Order: sequence, then C-alpha cells, then structure tokens
Amino acid sequence: MAAIGVFDSGVGGLTVLRALKQRWPGEDFIYLADTARLPYGSKSLATIHNYVEQCLKFLKRYPLKAAVIACNTASAAVLEQPITFDVPVFNVIEPGSRRALQLSESKRIGVLGTRTTVHSESYPHAIRKLAPDAEIFQQPCPLFVPLVEEGWVEDPVTNIIVYRYVSSVLKHQIDTLIMGCTHYPVLEAAIRKATGPSVHLVDSSYGLIEDLGKLELSDEKKDGKLTILCTDFSPRLEETIRLLLGDITFDDIQTVDL
Amino acid sequence: MAAIGVFDSGVGGLTVLRALKQRWPGEDFIYLADTARLPYGSKSLATIHNYVEQCLKFLKRYPLKAAVIACNTASAAVLEQPITFDVPVFNVIEPGSRRALQLSESKRIGVLGTRTTVHSESYPHAIRKLAPDAEIFQQPCPLFVPLVEEGWVEDPVTNIIVYRYVSSVLKHQIDTLIMGCTHYPVLEAAIRKATGPSVHLVDSSYGLIEDLGKLELSDEKKDGKLTILCTDFSPRLEETIRLLLGDITFDDIQTVDL
Repeated sequence: MAAIGVFDSGVGGLTVLRALKQRWPGEDFIYLADTARLPYGSKSLATIHNYVEQCLKFLKRYPLKAAVIACNTASAAVLEQPITFDVPVFNVIEPGSRRALQLSESKRIGVLGTRTTVHSESYPHAIRKLAPDAEIFQQPCPLFVPLVEEGWVEDPVTNIIVYRYVSSVLKHQIDTLIMGCTHYPVLEAAIRKATGPSVHLVDSSYGLIEDLGKLELSDEKKDGKLTILCTDFSPRLEETIRLLLGDITFDDIQTVDL
Repeated sequence: MAAIGVFDSGVGGLTVLRALKQRWPGEDFIYLADTARLPYGSKSLATIHNYVEQCLKFLKRYPLKAAVIACNTASAAVLEQPITFDVPVFNVIEPGSRRALQLSESKRIGVLGTRTTVHSESYPHAIRKLAPDAEIFQQPCPLFVPLVEEGWVEDPVTNIIVYRYVSSVLKHQIDTLIMGCTHYPVLEAAIRKATGPSVHLVDSSYGLIEDLGKLELSDEKKDGKLTILCTDFSPRLEETIRLLLGDITFDDIQTVDL
C-alpha cells in the first residue's frame, strides 16, 4: 500500500503529521526529518531547494501516493522554483494563506516565520494571489525554534521574546496572524498571550487537511503504519519525537544517509 | 606559499581567525565556513566527524602548512575519534583547557558549550589529562548562538538568559569559566556581568596562539592573503563576516560545494 510521505528539516513537521494521522489513522505515513542539516530557516533558498530535491528523491524509494512538505521554509523554496515529482506534492504556505483569508475580515494579516521564509515573500505572494487587496506584515522570529528545542515553552523569558516579535506586527492593526513555521504552534499559548483574544491565529495544518481531502484516502479506523526516518539521530531526538506525537505511536525509526 | 586553513561550522571561528591574523599578519589564511549545514552544536558526534572529514578533505585542494579546527563541537568530534591529515591539525579544546589550568587556583572550572560539546565530555577529559584532581562543571547554552546571530548582544533578554545558564555553574564555586564555543566571546560583556569580576574567563584563542607558535610562521608585517569560503552564501552572512573581522579585510569570498 502506498504511503503519504511527510518531510521537514526537523521535528516541527510532527505537528502537521499528528494532525494528518488523527484525520486519517488508516493511512500509512513515512516522515523524513533532515536533522543532519537543520535548521533550514536561516539558509539561502538555493541551498534549501537543493536539500528538498534530495529529500524528495530519497522518499521515492518508497511507494507513495502523496508528499507533504511540512516545513514553511522548504515550501517557500518550492513555491519560488517548482519541483517536478510523480505524485502530488503539498506545501504548507498555500493552505495557510487560504485559511488566513477565510478568517480575516480586515484583510490585514500578520506572518511570523523564519528569516528565509519571510525574505522569500512567499506568504505575501500566495495571499495576494487570492486577495490582491490584502495587506501583509511579516516578522522573522529566529529565536522561536531554539526556544522550543530548549523546552522553554512556558517560561517568562519566552513570553518576553514572543511579545517583542509579535508586537512588531500587532502595531499594524492585523486581525489574523499566521504561525508560519511548523514549530510555532508549540508556542501558541505564549503567542495568544501577546495578541490577546481578538486576533485569529492560523496553523497551516487546518488548510492542509482540506487539500489532502481531495485525494482518495482511507477512512478506515485501523492503525496505519508510521515510519520515521532521520538523517542524524540522538536519544534526545527520539524523546522529542515521542513528546510531540503524544498518543500517536510509530512503528520504526531509522537513520538514513541521503 | 602554503596557507593556514581555518575551519568552522559558521562565523564563530572568525573570532579565532581574527586573533591569529593579528598575531601573524604576513601569513596567508583560508577560512572555510560550513554554513549550509550549521549549526553543529546540536548534532551527533558521528555526523560532525563526517562533516569535519569532508571539510578538511576540501581544504586539501589548497597548499596548507596547518589546519585549525576553530569550532569546539568539531574539535570534540576529532578528539573523540582522531583524523589523519598530512599537515598539523590544531583544535580549540586542548589549548582552552591548558589556559584554564594556568589561570585557576582552586582547579574548579566551569565550561559553557553547545549541547554536543558538553555531552562529548571533551573538556573534562582534556582538563583531567593535565590535572587529574580538577573538578569540572559544564552547562550547555543552546540559546547563545541564536542570540548572537539575532544581534541581541547588548540586550536585557540576553542578560537574563546568560545569567540563567551561568548561575548554574557559578553555584559550584568555580574560579575559572571556559567560553567553550567560538561564538561566546561575543557575549563576554554579558557573561562578565553574570560572573562578577572574580572569575577568570577563558577564550581558547589565547592558548591556540601558543600552539601555533611552535610552527615556523612568518613574522613579516605585510598583509598576507585572506580567502573566505562558505557552503551557503547570503548578503547577511557577508555583513556578519565584515562585522566580526573588524579592521581585518579579506581578499575574496566564494561559495563552494563540498
């Protein structure tokens, strides 16, 4: 049976995998984490594009029915320069943009992302393609991923840093804020504290489930297989994977060389 | 004329290069930054060892008289599993350890480093080889590099984070603290604020100059050439390089594929 391949630079994409696995428990999934070369968020789009091509090529060793690029920076690289692949490839930027426009009334939308995602202008392009009059205000948040990886999720220091980044987009009277990196939903409580209750927060997984719903996927309740592949392994990584997957269990974890 | 190769995962090693170039302005230097795969500090020693081998192999394309691994994590990987190379290879952990023992009276020494450097136990091994009765207290500081790269060097948030990490080693009554990552001397003022004046701070460049002094190096005052190679280039990177090098100018910057 063909599986759905999910790819990210590291563990952030597990928040996406988790949402997909909860929606389609009967499907097989293969998750590839390029942990030997992470993070992608501060590197050039050309280098990231090269990495994404290598990762997708590697995933082709498995029978696939679809591939999901569960990383905003990698999605930005693919939107800038498309990749040909023999099964449908989904990214997280287009569904996140669509979801933001469903929620926003003022069409004033904030985007938090990595440095490379922000500089790529992928979110402004994707949003304006659907709503040319939308106004987009972006903020790179390079400290969010290290804070999540340090485990300082509920921490006064994290609240200060989140407040600093978020306030720089809030001042533009946005009514919707895209968490434009798959790590950021882990910080949702801190981001919510900074925005207050009146701003819609967008997690791209929601729109992605709509997109994948167009494929013919199994609605069986039985457990499909979940295989995790990573390019660099550590016991700490396995611990983080278990933490982020929660009640979702995996069948196998392997270290691979691309 | 053969050059001195200096290698780091990113820009941190420029603090070392700067010290060497100031001491031996007449020598040619080649600096290789593996910016496409940085940071090394959170990855396994096996992966880092593999990267160091590739980087040294690449440097062999140039006539070299010595190679300096100006990265603590990469040095840890090489101390754990030596690499054969046809010119002398220097690391930053052994000279940093020696310098700490020159300064310490109580032989109670703190080490700040990346997660991988700390877990490798390279500093405790190197220090105890010279002074078996020394007591070493380590602290991984995974947020220091992102803070430096965000440019939040003189910032209240940075002071809070530095204080949190540093106080966890200070409580062991150390009299000497090794800044065990080439990025950390950029945060020296904040670290000094946290330690107070009575603790010796160790930057490994000092001991490295002693080590390289054993080679026959040029004492000419004329400017030797400085070539910078990186595996991922961005205008922001060039800006950071110029900032960290200060009055030291480079002749060429090239993006290379290892």
